[in-house]
Amino acid sequence: MPRFAAIGLDHRHIYDLTAGLRAAGSVCVGHDPETSDPHVLAGFRKRFPDVPPIGREQLLDDPSIDFIVLAAVPRERADIAIQAMRRGKDVMVDKPGAITSDQLSAVEAAVRETGRIWSVALGRLTSPAVQAALAVARSGELGRLVSLTSLAPHRLNRALRPAWFFDRAAYGGIITDIGVHSIDQFLAFAGVDDATIAAATIGCFGTQPAGFEDFAEVTLRGGGMTGTMRLDWFTPDGLPDWGDGRLFLVGTEGTLELRKNLDIEGRAGGDHLFVANRERTRYQDCSGLSVEYYRDFVADVRDRAGRTMENGRVFAACRLTLRCQVSAERFVAD
Amino acid sequence: MPRFAAIGLDHRHIYDLTAGLRAAGSVCVGHDPETSDPHVLAGFRKRFPDVPPIGREQLLDDPSIDFIVLAAVPRERADIAIQAMRRGKDVMVDKPGAITSDQLSAVEAAVRETGRIWSVALGRLTSPAVQAALAVARSGELGRLVSLTSLAPHRLNRALRPAWFFDRAAYGGIITDIGVHSIDQFLAFAGVDDATIAAATIGCFGTQPAGFEDFAEVTLRGGGMTGTMRLDWFTPDGLPDWGDGRLFLVGTEGTLELRKNLDIEGRAGGDHLFVANRERTRYQDCSGLSVEYYRDFVADVRDRAGRTMENGRVFAACRLTLRCQVSAERFVAD
Repeated sequence: MPRFAAIGLDHRHIYDLTAGLRAAGSVCVGHDPETSDPHVLAGFRKRFPDVPPIGREQLLDDPSIDFIVLAAVPRERADIAIQAMRRGKDVMVDKPGAITSDQLSAVEAAVRETGRIWSVALGRLTSPAVQAALAVARSGELGRLVSLTSLAPHRLNRALRPAWFFDRAAYGGIITDIGVHSIDQFLAFAGVDDATIAAATIGCFGTQPAGFEDFAEVTLRGGGMTGTMRLDWFTPDGLPDWGDGRLFLVGTEGTLELRKNLDIEGRAGGDHLFVANRERTRYQDCSGLSVEYYRDFVADVRDRAGRTMENGRVFAACRLTLRCQVSAERFVAD
Repeated sequence: MPRFAAIGLDHRHIYDLTAGLRAAGSVCVGHDPETSDPHVLAGFRKRFPDVPPIGREQLLDDPSIDFIVLAAVPRERADIAIQAMRRGKDVMVDKPGAITSDQLSAVEAAVRETGRIWSVALGRLTSPAVQAALAVARSGELGRLVSLTSLAPHRLNRALRPAWFFDRAAYGGIITDIGVHSIDQFLAFAGVDDATIAAATIGCFGTQPAGFEDFAEVTLRGGGMTGTMRLDWFTPDGLPDWGDGRLFLVGTEGTLELRKNLDIEGRAGGDHLFVANRERTRYQDCSGLSVEYYRDFVADVRDRAGRTMENGRVFAACRLTLRCQVSAERFVAD
């Protein structure tokens, strides 16, 4: 069984990643207790009491450890990933895996030089509903795709956030941080590895501290289709989930909607898929579908087949995301 | 009781306008049988067998007729409206009321000179769900508005369309034709009479004839908020309505969604409103709400109070729409 360590216990996403990897048949042999957020560390220990604390250097030096899972402060993720790869370890990293193009290039060079795996746990990979929507789109049921609209609201949860969450130099900006999911998703539906940025806007609507990027909208074109993605930190407290994420596809023969997180005032649970095609409408509950990502990653660690590297698509998605972040027009509401 | 005539029986919208005006307490005393589409004329006669055919000139000369309702070929609407106003009649016109800025200026001048009413039957005015959403937004429940996203798909219904429907010189282009609803709606939510065009794109995704504008997306900014509106002619045949129209509002304290036409694979009927606020989520069925527009128009005809002119907002919405149509970037999918 592949053995791994959890490093960078700065963001709660480490919980899901660790749980997913354990369920996929790998063993978490230790966690680095260094953290910027003691709540995250405490939560990790509560969920995984059998995983002992071990210093980072000792974990990275341990030749019996095959890979690390990483959710450090975003600014530090690329560097830790590169150190791990240079010491013979594969890496699964929470998004964003890199917050500057220099960092991303350095990661890419390290992957080339070491032959190690660097996989970003993007929403497309961990969402059964998105996987089901991709299957519908690829089946031809919707005809040729025309347009994608993605709504990706997030809850701010101010009380739970460490200081770096509000420091753009540390987290990389709203498109870098949460837009990478939507941009990667667009590339997957368009079936391309790059796209033209038709429009990119970052908005500051008054969330404190001043200048905090609480809104963004990106329009991309590629693969003969267009896609507009909205990101924001305005999920209201009364919504019983962290964000009412949606995906709308328009094709020449059909349309599709995903209600990823919840069906507001409707069905229980998440992962709801709705299709209208030439003949009828239909509903599919995707919540029972299996998520292949963690199993694919563990299999990649074993046989190096590259399932989760997808011939560089992850790098392409991250690179385009960073271009959107840097080139976005700024909108500051008065 | 105010008396009116139906002129320009070229588009089926004449049915709803006539029915709405009759229900609001005015009398349809005749219809002009001239048409580009005999099916529309036949449908009118079937629905309103008591309304006699009378020549257009005779209707316009009849001093007992207070106003006309107009759904001619879009290219001709401004001119007919101006003729009617110059002959002492108010006008309710199907959208688009004008397809060039010269036409719009001429209408505006005629309104100024004659003191007549020129009202475009925009979707905001005839939709109880949009009226309810405006009431929620104005109540402050959503906090300060940040963003509006509107999805406005339409069914092509090729077999039912007359030739002018596919001739841009006759109908004015996709933004002029169907975008005016969304743009007017944005101005109403933003509480402004004009907006900045951040992006406008018209797409041709292969709907015949070549070059037919089957897709558009417009991003506007005004009143401290941003809005993105998608229009298209891709409603699939299997959807049990002409288009799954949606409206999403994001505010600093809450969010709102409208499912205007239908709740796909869900509740019966249309006009469904969903809110998430600081405390909870809630659903409101808006289908039983009354539509004030026709009553307001008939009252305006009587007392000239200007309810449906809204201090020129209709002109502002039409003017901004025509600017979007003319300035839009073109995207032709290969």
